[in-house]
Parts: sequence; C-alpha cells; structure tokens
Amino acid sequence: LMRPYEKDPLAIYAASFATVRSEAKLDRFDAGMERLAIRLIHACGMVEVADRLAYSKDAYMAGHEALAKGAPILCDCEMVGAGIIRRYLPADNQVIVTLNDPRTPDHAKTIGNTRSAAAVEFWADHLEGAVVAIGNAPTALFHLLELIDQGAPKPAVILGFPVGFVGAAESKAELAANPRGCDFVALRGRRGGSAIASAAVNALAVGLPEIGE
Amino acid sequence: LMRPYEKDPLAIYAASFATVRSEAKLDRFDAGMERLAIRLIHACGMVEVADRLAYSKDAYMAGHEALAKGAPILCDCEMVGAGIIRRYLPADNQVIVTLNDPRTPDHAKTIGNTRSAAAVEFWADHLEGAVVAIGNAPTALFHLLELIDQGAPKPAVILGFPVGFVGAAESKAELAANPRGCDFVALRGRRGGSAIASAAVNALAVGLPEIGE
Repeated sequence: LMRPYEKDPLAIYAASFATVRSEAKLDRFDAGMERLAIRLIHACGMVEVADRLAYSKDAYMAGHEALAKGAPILCDCEMVGAGIIRRYLPADNQVIVTLNDPRTPDHAKTIGNTRSAAAVEFWADHLEGAVVAIGNAPTALFHLLELIDQGAPKPAVILGFPVGFVGAAESKAELAANPRGCDFVALRGRRGGSAIASAAVNALAVGLPEIGE
Repeated sequence: LMRPYEKDPLAIYAASFATVRSEAKLDRFDAGMERLAIRLIHACGMVEVADRLAYSKDAYMAGHEALAKGAPILCDCEMVGAGIIRRYLPADNQVIVTLNDPRTPDHAKTIGNTRSAAAVEFWADHLEGAVVAIGNAPTALFHLLELIDQGAPKPAVILGFPVGFVGAAESKAELAANPRGCDFVALRGRRGGSAIASAAVNALAVGLPEIGE
C-alpha cells in the first residue's frame, strides 16, 4: 500500500519552513535576510547553506526597495527567469534574459568569452539599479564585475549563485571580497543554481507570504 | 586587480567534468549512468550526490531509446522544461508542462491535492512510454505513482528529483522501493531540484557531447 502523504499546499509550506527554522542556524540574519535564507534552503533542501551565505548588510532592503520601485530583474539563464513567481513581483517588473539573444553567439566570439558573459553586455541599458540574479554561469558574474570596473552602471543588488567546479567559488569570492559598491548576496563555494537564484528574487519581492511573513 | 578566469567554454566543460571524475565515486555505474551522474553533479556542484543515486539497471538505455523514438518529456514545473537543451533532443521531442494549465487550480481543489499533483492528471494522453522529469514537487511524484497504481499508462522512465523537507525523501523512497515496472533514476533524500532533473534529461538525450562522449 502507498504511504500516506501531505496534500495541502499551505500545510506543506508551513511544515517545510518550520523544519528549516528548527534545523538551520539563522540567528546572524535580520528579518529580511532570514526570510531570504529560508527560501534559499527551501529551494535546495540543504539547511547548511545558511552557513555559507555572504551578504552586504543592506542587501535585503536594497533589493526589496528596488523591486518595489519597478527595477528590472536581469537573469543569466532562462531557468532563473522561469523560477521567478510573477504574481509576487510588486511592480510587474521586467524579467530580462539575454542568453538566447540572436547576437549572443557572435558577440561571445568577438569578446573571447562565453555566451553567458557576452549576454551580460546586452544588459547595459537596464543595469542601473537593477536586481541581477546569476544562477548558472561563473563567467556571467566575473564579466559583470569586469564591466562595473570599466564604468558600467551599478545594479542595486547582485544575487550571486553560479554553480559548479570552474569559477563558481572564485567568482563569488571576488564578489564578496569587492562588491564594487553594490549590495549583494552570494552562496560561497561550488553550490548554487537557478532554483536558488530565483528563490532569492522571490524572497526580495515578498518574503514568506505562504506563512504570512 | 580582478583575478584571471577561464573564458573558453570547452575548456570549462573539460575541466569541470575532469574534476567530477577525479572526486566522485562513479565505479558502480555503467557508461550511460556514469554520464548521467556526471551531468547531475555538474548541475549542482556536489560530487557526493553520486552516492545517493537510486536507479533501475536499464534506466539509461530505456530513457535514451524512448527519446530517440520521439517520446514526449513531461515536467512538473516550468524550470525543468527551461533547463532541457532543445538542440540535444534527438527527435524534436515535445516538452510538456501542465502546471500552468488554466484547469489546474480548480482540478487541485476537486481532487484535494496540490496544483503540482493535479497537473500530473493532464499528462494522461502522453504518459505511455514518456520520459517523466520531476524536479520540484514531491506531490507530483506521489500522485504519478498513485495514478499508475490505478491503471494509468506507464512512462518509459521516471526521473525523480523532487526537493525539500516535506515528502521529497519519502516520495523518492517510494519510487525506489516500488517503481511499478517503470525504469527510474532518483536522488535519495531531501536534495533534488529542477536543474538536476533537466540535467538528467539532457544526459539521456546525448551523454556528454561537450567532451565528445
């Protein structure tokens, strides 16, 4: 016989977030960052990622206010965009993904970098005060920081969650060591991913509305 | 000064997969499952997930052949669909996501289950011989197994990667303990997610073409 299972979505959310609160070490966070950390943990099933979050003191409010004022959300891949819950966005914010822009492959060859890095250059007109969510490519984060060093406009907040074995840990360490005057949240090390990046955006937008927070 | 970083996509793939091979324990896998495991690890940045994979002996070939014959891919959420690399699909396979079908919210109320579970019922006409990729909702996996118990057609392979704290570990344990005659791959425990589920589909489609495998 099939085992019984919880089918009520609100009960599932409540039990999930209660488990996260009981297992994760959250006391170093303020209220906004606590909710963001809970959503990140919920997205990946690992309470210990709370211990590896690097962030600027004002990151949560900077991102929350940017979204409230209508800032666009710039994502490094389609999956991050797909995970952003549109009904949570406070100002019908634009979600912009340029990775599959038809100009991207040629531009990658021109600049001698990956498609993900080339795609970041097409964010230029939207960067000022934007929410940037990187959930896949270390080269996108590295190149964004290079462009800011070269004078590109600064986003309000950089959500740094590239994943993997080449450049992910290094690009997030670079962001945390020198955020170039931007607010930021990043998960140190190899772990990251699009679901975590989307969860961070959703947290900045609304916190934890599923349990009334 | 900004630290230097690798910008060549093929070099990044080669170094990534080489790191995975040097750190992960892969010797229990055949050639197909090894490539699938490598893609999963690459997607999440954690070599230790190799140790928690449950799978049926023929899962890789069953999924590979189903895709070659044109099987549709049924996903529990938009993010899984977004992570499937379309140019890798051998037969222009349909990628079907019914979560945002306009009938889903009402149907969820009717059956007293989540929207994710209700959406699975709209897969009915496509289930026979399909590749199912679940990267978010435990209730989608549980309900799929219930429907099969009630006589629904059987997919060729179930890729079980729901994530989180309520039902994820349990639904994957149920699948592994009783796969109902379906081939399957599942990551035991709380971890999972859409990027891992998409990576499994991409692996079934093509292995590791980035390094010629």
